[in-house]
Amino acid sequence: MDETKILLSEKEIPQRWYNIQPDLPAPLAPPINPKTHKPIGPEDLAPIFPMELIKQEVSLEPWIEIPNEVMDMYRVWRPTPLRRARRLEKALGTPARIYYKDESVSPPGSHKPNTAVAQAYYNKVEGVKRLTTETGAGQWGSALSFATCLCGLECTIYMVRISYDQKPYRKLLMQSWNGKAIASPSDQTNSGRAILADYPDSPGSLGMAISEAVEDAATHDDAKYSLGSVLNHVLLHQTIVGLEVQEQLKLAGEKVDIICGCVGGGSNYAGLIFPFVKEKLAGRDLTLIATEPTACPTLTRGEFRYDFGDTAQLTPLLKMFTLGHRFVPPPIHAGGLRYHGAAPLICLLAAQKVIEPRAYHQNTVFDAALTFARSEGMLCAPETSHAIRAAIDEALKCKETGEEKCILIGYSGHGFFDLAAYEKYFGKELVDYEYPQEKIDEALQSVPVIEDAPE
Amino acid sequence: MDETKILLSEKEIPQRWYNIQPDLPAPLAPPINPKTHKPIGPEDLAPIFPMELIKQEVSLEPWIEIPNEVMDMYRVWRPTPLRRARRLEKALGTPARIYYKDESVSPPGSHKPNTAVAQAYYNKVEGVKRLTTETGAGQWGSALSFATCLCGLECTIYMVRISYDQKPYRKLLMQSWNGKAIASPSDQTNSGRAILADYPDSPGSLGMAISEAVEDAATHDDAKYSLGSVLNHVLLHQTIVGLEVQEQLKLAGEKVDIICGCVGGGSNYAGLIFPFVKEKLAGRDLTLIATEPTACPTLTRGEFRYDFGDTAQLTPLLKMFTLGHRFVPPPIHAGGLRYHGAAPLICLLAAQKVIEPRAYHQNTVFDAALTFARSEGMLCAPETSHAIRAAIDEALKCKETGEEKCILIGYSGHGFFDLAAYEKYFGKELVDYEYPQEKIDEALQSVPVIEDAPE
Repeated sequence: MDETKILLSEKEIPQRWYNIQPDLPAPLAPPINPKTHKPIGPEDLAPIFPMELIKQEVSLEPWIEIPNEVMDMYRVWRPTPLRRARRLEKALGTPARIYYKDESVSPPGSHKPNTAVAQAYYNKVEGVKRLTTETGAGQWGSALSFATCLCGLECTIYMVRISYDQKPYRKLLMQSWNGKAIASPSDQTNSGRAILADYPDSPGSLGMAISEAVEDAATHDDAKYSLGSVLNHVLLHQTIVGLEVQEQLKLAGEKVDIICGCVGGGSNYAGLIFPFVKEKLAGRDLTLIATEPTACPTLTRGEFRYDFGDTAQLTPLLKMFTLGHRFVPPPIHAGGLRYHGAAPLICLLAAQKVIEPRAYHQNTVFDAALTFARSEGMLCAPETSHAIRAAIDEALKCKETGEEKCILIGYSGHGFFDLAAYEKYFGKELVDYEYPQEKIDEALQSVPVIEDAPE
Repeated sequence: MDETKILLSEKEIPQRWYNIQPDLPAPLAPPINPKTHKPIGPEDLAPIFPMELIKQEVSLEPWIEIPNEVMDMYRVWRPTPLRRARRLEKALGTPARIYYKDESVSPPGSHKPNTAVAQAYYNKVEGVKRLTTETGAGQWGSALSFATCLCGLECTIYMVRISYDQKPYRKLLMQSWNGKAIASPSDQTNSGRAILADYPDSPGSLGMAISEAVEDAATHDDAKYSLGSVLNHVLLHQTIVGLEVQEQLKLAGEKVDIICGCVGGGSNYAGLIFPFVKEKLAGRDLTLIATEPTACPTLTRGEFRYDFGDTAQLTPLLKMFTLGHRFVPPPIHAGGLRYHGAAPLICLLAAQKVIEPRAYHQNTVFDAALTFARSEGMLCAPETSHAIRAAIDEALKCKETGEEKCILIGYSGHGFFDLAAYEKYFGKELVDYEYPQEKIDEALQSVPVIEDAPE
């Protein structure tokens, strides 16, 4: 076979999401109430999430049917191609076989709509008229705008003001899909007004934008809040990615040895690896590499403890690897990987040594992105370049050892909205941030000490 | 069948391009030498084009084999999907069935690489080390950079200075693929230096950039020039698009009634319709709509005469519909449709009434683009929006008459690099330009009068 792309037909799109919760190697610590330290219940989440998603959040069913209406939206861009990176293999001179699962083909350009269309659908069914969310650079805001547009819902996106002002293109993309982007902090919410009263020129932060989006949903009966990563139900929806890959590898007659993905909140990585984790836990030899930026080394240098998901301490406490919820990562260009924590499901797998975290500097991941663009012809997002870096390193090891390993990359998004970052790279202006241990220790001081946390 | 996309496998990519020249309804007037008024021969073109492309330019073979190496590059993104626009049909309430051939999935985001990879390949085989070309907004320059990068050639792109300064993203995309963009007029060529001597702050024009690119190729032994539209061999390479559509419509059990495409130089439109023109000339009932901007009404208001292809009068004379080679269209956002002439093959079909030209204003095509984005979820290039406008108009006619026609749209490219244009549209800043006849007559005065032109 000399095919470049392994394609499935629309009929072969998996009909169910895979829920890893019943198959975990250890129990998942529940989210807890920051005041009582008791596990939170559905009633705590009901003001901001629809009941079906709350059920999925705690479900122990191994498989969850994908509703027809969601399948219908998936068919706009799914199944996505699994591409064989023959040109990259040749450029590296490696005996390894490299594949990449291309989630950049969705209209918003990343894996994000896999959960956005599902969340929009369940909200619509429960009578919700409008979704609120926050966005940094705009990747998630555009995916949710796309999804709500297809479902006929309204969408309000609190966008970090500095991105709103400096990155107009993603904002316009949201507007094309009827999404309403509001610069945060804004005068639309109490929390926004309070910040503006003290700091009229505040550039905003993701923490502030979360506060505004949650408040907006909680104070309007017809609105709910939507989150693009971290939570179990978000990761669940993303498993469509890994399930497709399993079918595609079967068609290619391949058994994968190494999977490389990038982790910010963790949803893209979870979607890719969860169906394979099941095989690994059943005894299969498989290396699962989770990449992150050295500038935000959550999995490699954080501590596995209960912490808040947001800066403003509005969310329940989640057990995860964390650098502390007050940790402010430097302005690296992989905006989607600048998060102080990560999904509890991913963190559990890291704690259990099922996955191997690795951190990379900015310049080396852009080197990898360019090697990839100039061989494969595809320009990736800065987040995705971390996964490519790991894959290239593994392929070069194979060159030394002569091993013919099969390597899979999670190609989570394209870089068409990130060309300003490439410009800095070309201009040799990218800074490689590294922390001495005392800086990490200092950041970790914002993690609350919970004596009576559930095991 | 309720499939959203009609997909072919890689094995089903057509193995040959279709050459319309032996099937034309009337003889094609040859390009002529501006001084002698005699048809130009291969020796005139040899300094700037490789021999294989010169042969294709005049070939009367109905089918031309696609080399394996080109097929291999096509497989990076081909076959492209034929999508059924069910959501658009529903939004319009039309009984028509609407399909669109999605050429936006190529890495550079348009149909342009269909010819770029072929041209790069033939040049490489003949020992060329570097290609030169011009680009306006950067669509063609990025496609040729992509192609030369895959083939291991160098690429020099003379980019109109005002675009170079104002639109850095396409320039960076070229750089990602090793393409070297130079602001034109530049100090790299005699023609560029001459302009700069008189106008040091010249914003440049496509005419000037062509002069520089041609001079660069003609004065360097290892370099040739590459053109992205207008010429017969360029249109030939694009027929891969229409040939795939024919296979896909067969799979869908459809017979198309109306095809809508947009015409700038004409290569995208030609690629889509030429295989169908053959059927139409054989007696089949088929409406072929060629759309263009009212601001640059070449086919609807130009004259069918010999004219220069460029402002600087460097090219041979081509028989085409023209507004005069000195015509300067206003700065509409469909940059790819701002050309005073069009491909001679397309113009011949227009003169013979095989195709139906229609002109549209900016605001109405952006209306159509938004209707499309908000139903289908896909954000198109401003050029493509012209084709969508025509298709929506035809679908609305079907709504009135109850006819269940099958309508096909040439979806030539995405709009991710055109969000500044959408911003103007949202801000109601787009101007609809219309010309009184005396303005057109004035523009036509730059067309040379050729008494002894071949018939």
